[in-house]
Amino acid sequence: MSKYNLSKTSTRAPEKLDKLEIKEKTLEYIARIDELQNILYAESKWSLLIVLQGMDASGKDGAVREVFSAMNPQGVMVKSFKKPTKEELSHDFLWRVHKYVPKRGMIQIFNRSHYEDVLVTRVKGIIDDDTARKRFRLINSFEDLLNEANTKILKFYLHISKEEQKERFQDRLNNPRKHWKFNPEDLKTSENWGEYEKYYEEVFENCGKKIPWIIVPSDQNWYKEYIIAKTIVKTLESLNLKYPKLQFNE
Amino acid sequence: MSKYNLSKTSTRAPEKLDKLEIKEKTLEYIARIDELQNILYAESKWSLLIVLQGMDASGKDGAVREVFSAMNPQGVMVKSFKKPTKEELSHDFLWRVHKYVPKRGMIQIFNRSHYEDVLVTRVKGIIDDDTARKRFRLINSFEDLLNEANTKILKFYLHISKEEQKERFQDRLNNPRKHWKFNPEDLKTSENWGEYEKYYEEVFENCGKKIPWIIVPSDQNWYKEYIIAKTIVKTLESLNLKYPKLQFNE
Repeated sequence: MSKYNLSKTSTRAPEKLDKLEIKEKTLEYIARIDELQNILYAESKWSLLIVLQGMDASGKDGAVREVFSAMNPQGVMVKSFKKPTKEELSHDFLWRVHKYVPKRGMIQIFNRSHYEDVLVTRVKGIIDDDTARKRFRLINSFEDLLNEANTKILKFYLHISKEEQKERFQDRLNNPRKHWKFNPEDLKTSENWGEYEKYYEEVFENCGKKIPWIIVPSDQNWYKEYIIAKTIVKTLESLNLKYPKLQFNE
Repeated sequence: MSKYNLSKTSTRAPEKLDKLEIKEKTLEYIARIDELQNILYAESKWSLLIVLQGMDASGKDGAVREVFSAMNPQGVMVKSFKKPTKEELSHDFLWRVHKYVPKRGMIQIFNRSHYEDVLVTRVKGIIDDDTARKRFRLINSFEDLLNEANTKILKFYLHISKEEQKERFQDRLNNPRKHWKFNPEDLKTSENWGEYEKYYEEVFENCGKKIPWIIVPSDQNWYKEYIIAKTIVKTLESLNLKYPKLQFNE
C-alpha cells in the first residue's frame, strides 16, 4: 500500500487564505524568479528541471504561461512531451527526454515527462507491472545522473478533483477559444480516473524518495501558481547563487 | 583487488594459429555480418551497440575500417567521442552518449565512449574515486536501460602491449601518411600506462558483471579483427533474427 492517497488529498487552497493577498505574493515570487534566473544563467553552475504532471485539464499549460512568461526566454525552455513518435519509440523510453535536460545555467520545463511512460502506458496496458517497476529504478537512476550534474529537479503534480476536471472539459466545449484543447480522448482519461490515481500514487512512492513530488492543490489556479512560484524561489535561493566575479584573461 | 590483471593477459594470438587461415575465416564472418545486419534492419526489433576502447594506437580506427567497411552504411553508424565540448561538459556525462545510441534495426559503433569518463578523467585527476564509483553505477543503469530496449551491447577492450604501442607511435612519426595521427599527448598517455591499466581493470570489474567486457589480444591486427568479427556474428545469431513476413494493410 502506498502512503499516498490522492482521493483523500485536498485539491483546494486552505479556507482562510485571502486570494488577492496570495496573488500579490505570487507576483513578487515571479519577479524574484526572474532575478534569480539571471544569476543562475550568469553563474552557469546549476540548472533547474521542472517537471509538470497531472491529469488532463489540471492546468499544466496555464502554469507555464503564468509563472514563466515574465522570464527571459533565453534562460528558460519548455518542452511538451506528446505521444511518442515512431523514431522515439524505436529507442529506450528515456532517450527522447535526455536530449532536453537543461545545461548548466538553464531552466527547463517538462510539460509532461518520462513519467508518462509509467502512467498512460500502464492504463493502456502497454507495459506490465514488472516493466513499470524496472522503469521506476531506471528513472531514479536517470534523475540521480542529472542530480550529480548539478541539475536540481522539481516535480510538481497538479492535483485537481474529478468535478473540477469535468467543468473544465465543459468549458472547452462551450468556449470557442478553447475548442482546440478539447480532445474526445479526454473523456476516456476521465473514465480511468481511479487507475490514474493509483499509478500516480505508485510513482510518488517509488520515484519520490530522493527527489520528492510536490502535490499542488490545483482546483484554483491562483493557489496552484502561488505554490509553484514559491517552491521555485525557495529552491533557487537554496543554491546560494552568485554572479561570477569579473575576470581578466591573463 | 580486481580479478583482472591486464599486465598478465596476453596481447597476442595463440601460437599455433595459422594467420592465413584466420584471415580467411574473418572474411567469412564479415560477409556473414553483412547478411545479418540486413535482417536486423528489416526486422527492426533489436539493435547492436559496439563499444571500442583501448589505449592509444590499440587499433580502434583500424577495427572499424576492416570489420565494418564492407557493410551497408545505411544500417551502421560510427560515432567517435573526442574531448568533450563546452556544450557537452555543461550536461551530465552520459548526455552526449545517449543521443547516439542505436535505434531498433541499427548497428552503432562507439569509437571511445562513456567509459572515457571513468578513465582519462581519473588519470588526469578530474574526478576522484568516489565520483568514479558513482559513475560506475550510473553507467550500469544506463546500459540496463539500453538492454531493456532491445539493444545488445558488445564492449571490446583492444589489448596491446606497451612495446607494440611504442612501435606504432614510431611508425606514425616515420610514415608521412600517418603523421596526422601522431599527437604529442600520446607519449604522456604512454607514461601513465600503469594507471590506465589499473583503471581499466576497475572498469571491467565494476561495469562488466551484466554485460561483460571482451578483452581482445590486439598486437596483431589480423587476430583482433578475427575476434571482433566472430563475436559480432555469434551475438547477432543468438538474436534469432527473422525477416518480417509480407503484410498487407487492411
